[in-house]
Amino acid sequence: MLKKKHYAEHSRFYVAIDCIIFGFDKSTLKVLLVKRKFAPMKGAWSLMGGFLIDKESLDEAAERILFSLTGLNNVYLEQLNCYGDIGRDPAARVISVSYYALIKTEDYNEELGVKYGAKWFELEKKPDLIFDHNIMIDKALSRLRRKSRSQPIGFNLLSEKFTIPQLQKLYEAIHQVQFDKRNFRKRILSMHFLEKLNEKEKRASRKGAFLYRFDIVKYEEAINSGFLFEI
Amino acid sequence: MLKKKHYAEHSRFYVAIDCIIFGFDKSTLKVLLVKRKFAPMKGAWSLMGGFLIDKESLDEAAERILFSLTGLNNVYLEQLNCYGDIGRDPAARVISVSYYALIKTEDYNEELGVKYGAKWFELEKKPDLIFDHNIMIDKALSRLRRKSRSQPIGFNLLSEKFTIPQLQKLYEAIHQVQFDKRNFRKRILSMHFLEKLNEKEKRASRKGAFLYRFDIVKYEEAINSGFLFEI
Repeated sequence: MLKKKHYAEHSRFYVAIDCIIFGFDKSTLKVLLVKRKFAPMKGAWSLMGGFLIDKESLDEAAERILFSLTGLNNVYLEQLNCYGDIGRDPAARVISVSYYALIKTEDYNEELGVKYGAKWFELEKKPDLIFDHNIMIDKALSRLRRKSRSQPIGFNLLSEKFTIPQLQKLYEAIHQVQFDKRNFRKRILSMHFLEKLNEKEKRASRKGAFLYRFDIVKYEEAINSGFLFEI
Repeated sequence: MLKKKHYAEHSRFYVAIDCIIFGFDKSTLKVLLVKRKFAPMKGAWSLMGGFLIDKESLDEAAERILFSLTGLNNVYLEQLNCYGDIGRDPAARVISVSYYALIKTEDYNEELGVKYGAKWFELEKKPDLIFDHNIMIDKALSRLRRKSRSQPIGFNLLSEKFTIPQLQKLYEAIHQVQFDKRNFRKRILSMHFLEKLNEKEKRASRKGAFLYRFDIVKYEEAINSGFLFEI
């Protein structure tokens, strides 16, 4: 219940959106960072962000900011947390809402990123970021790990067609563990939501590896019967 | 990255905190609601909330608001989501951050709630709430369900000493299912994080039921070895 005061007596705050943009390039999980263009901390690495404007919801703001950097619409985008510590931005009190996005690096248009000084970083090699942006990434990674076990969101990071070794690399990158090749294949195929195609990917080896496609209907059947994506 | 504009050119917004206060009275899961004292929707049922003030973080604001209604400190309180749709509050643009709290109804001081018109409601019997507060409760309940499977947060709703039937009722209330009495007891005791006391609770039956206490050390050992609280 809001206090019995006129709204106008209360303080108002800047509200920002910060986007954690995860990308997968068939072998490594990366995060897209930009160079901050103004003080405080001009020139430092930062998440892509922007201020909320009057005529949009938080989700719309996140979509606008993601689009302005990547040119992408209809990507997996989910709200994470709200950050409001005093002094988190030394220049002014800004409440920031973090969102994370999952994209395939092949869909990302590098030309758009130039004006933001955007660059992909492997997670283990990312630079130190401004404000609380390091924490935002840590929290986003935890959410990605948890969700990728109970929902097929990991598949947003893969091309439509992929090989089992590519899927294994994605899950190894998300969970930062190594899986045994044979066990991974056996386990993943026993889940019956991959459709084997009559096509091979031949870049990785001379013999080639069969391509697969994700079957969302079968996946949802599995989810509804209480299944947990564990490897 | 914030846009290359002076901060002052951007809009500022009211920021509110709304608290979903869950309570357990040894048999039912309840939510604490208040009567809104001013327009819009004066007199309607609402979550307990308040505006963020300049000199506090979001977490501190949530603690202050919870304390003002319940007189309780050091309760389980966790941030959930941020709501910012245009028109969610018809009187003004307010960005609201939801938090959920878990308390034992026996700890709640009813006298404090009188000035807010506060009342406990069983979840299935709660009235329709203002704005997006119904959605806030639904989301909080999902989080409570998920977290109570992987972390001991459910125990924040129980007295320090409890019987197995009380624990069963709590988990039935959270997950809205019925468990078989014998299976529940067997399953829960096989997890080895309940300590049986040499005391009985005799109010529920003439024979009485042994009281138990939760062993956080053993629980954490179980968690660290990849355990999931499933019944």
